[in-house]
Amino acid sequence: MYDCVIIGAGAAGVSAALTLKARGKNFILLGNPALSAKIGAAEKVTNYPGLPSAEGSGLKQAFLSSLSASGISVTSAQVTGVYDMGGYFGVLCGENSFESKTVILATGVEAVKPVKGELEFLGRGVSYCATCDGLLYKGKKIVVVCTSKELEEEAEYLASLASQMVFAPIYKGAKHLSGNVRVINKMPAEIRGGARVQEVAFGGETIPCDGVFMLKSALAPSALVPGLKTEGGHVVVDRQCRTNLNGLFAAGDCTGRPYQYAKAVGEGNVAAHSVCDYLVENK
Amino acid sequence: MYDCVIIGAGAAGVSAALTLKARGKNFILLGNPALSAKIGAAEKVTNYPGLPSAEGSGLKQAFLSSLSASGISVTSAQVTGVYDMGGYFGVLCGENSFESKTVILATGVEAVKPVKGELEFLGRGVSYCATCDGLLYKGKKIVVVCTSKELEEEAEYLASLASQMVFAPIYKGAKHLSGNVRVINKMPAEIRGGARVQEVAFGGETIPCDGVFMLKSALAPSALVPGLKTEGGHVVVDRQCRTNLNGLFAAGDCTGRPYQYAKAVGEGNVAAHSVCDYLVENK
Repeated sequence: MYDCVIIGAGAAGVSAALTLKARGKNFILLGNPALSAKIGAAEKVTNYPGLPSAEGSGLKQAFLSSLSASGISVTSAQVTGVYDMGGYFGVLCGENSFESKTVILATGVEAVKPVKGELEFLGRGVSYCATCDGLLYKGKKIVVVCTSKELEEEAEYLASLASQMVFAPIYKGAKHLSGNVRVINKMPAEIRGGARVQEVAFGGETIPCDGVFMLKSALAPSALVPGLKTEGGHVVVDRQCRTNLNGLFAAGDCTGRPYQYAKAVGEGNVAAHSVCDYLVENK
Repeated sequence: MYDCVIIGAGAAGVSAALTLKARGKNFILLGNPALSAKIGAAEKVTNYPGLPSAEGSGLKQAFLSSLSASGISVTSAQVTGVYDMGGYFGVLCGENSFESKTVILATGVEAVKPVKGELEFLGRGVSYCATCDGLLYKGKKIVVVCTSKELEEEAEYLASLASQMVFAPIYKGAKHLSGNVRVINKMPAEIRGGARVQEVAFGGETIPCDGVFMLKSALAPSALVPGLKTEGGHVVVDRQCRTNLNGLFAAGDCTGRPYQYAKAVGEGNVAAHSVCDYLVENK
């Protein structure tokens, strides 16, 4: 049983991890070991105090150095659900799961809104995680929506499994995937089906399929955590980064604007302190 | 008329200044040009993301580099009052004053509580600023309470002016001041008087005097800003760092725990964004 699971290795998750480490807590940091793609992608950041005029790549290196200096590693995992078990949390990552007294959501924000039907069919043909669910669709027909170039590897893996795949990259310069892949350069309009997904509508055309992968760099918090209070797609938190669920905290872009490194780092720190307070109060 | 006056050059003030600069605002950053004494004093900081295992002096240099890279200078001033003029603010610094559409309070937190009578006699014999008010006490009897070694220069200046001075340093290793100076190594119990200060009680002993200087690294926000809502000595703010006064924002330690660089930097960023929003809404 962990003291805390931190979900997301962006600025907020890194900040929370450094503070929990300094406080001697037993935690795990789940995310991309190369950190959030967004950190590296920033062109130039002039307003993160202490790192003047850093480019995204420089910031990323500096954040990685901080983790390394504190002996913190990022565990590669795509979280598929967080469940309040009454007194502790179950964090599901495909077939793995973690138990923890507290959770810090630092999942960032995804500019792309859920497609009609996406949340409804989640777990019934809609998946966010190629590694977790890919094998279920070996030899089957799938649709793969991809929101960012960094996620192409997952799409490539899926292309190697599926008998037929429609690949829908919604960014420019997508690479050519080998396999039986057809490309449609737009977002689906709707995911439809009965007990499970049956088809995906792309404007005029409808693609019959067995499954749909929505590859995104950040998941909608409400899709991850049943019962979590959100507003306009953001997790509702108070000044201590507490959510409406006891023991579950949130920090960074997922709590709302401004979408800034400094703000995310600040909230990660606050959330970690609130975790420490919570652990004392709920011994 | 400035868009914003930032009061305090600690982590929160620096962060706010970098963001206002990036947004092209017309602002002034008031404080110690060598930055908050507290930044430099930290022994080792392991949880400020991007600057692994920085000592206080390293952090201070890094923050100064950020200011310099953005072409921001700190204006040396000790603010003695902030007044809501209805639509704009007057910021008094002894005999100087600034007018501004908004204010960000980033004054830090002083561990030392006000002495009984201190707030009551503020401006009637009690002063926080040797540079501002020292000359008023030339050839007179004063009591000088000093909370930090960094402020000894101000005490030395006062010793050169006063005919008699009682020096009350409340830290260890205070230097010997030249002049007619007697040292009492404790905090006063009470400041008393009539229309003006007349005496200071130190436990058993009472010192008659014309004025009292309380040299602190941070002032109580409620002493600086009439009408400001505080709670337990901290400025009450919402998640956008708004105070109860329209156009006045607060960030960093002065808004409450945790007293951390990351939290202060985050709130400085948020306060600066709120200033930008406010300026648009109140054009």
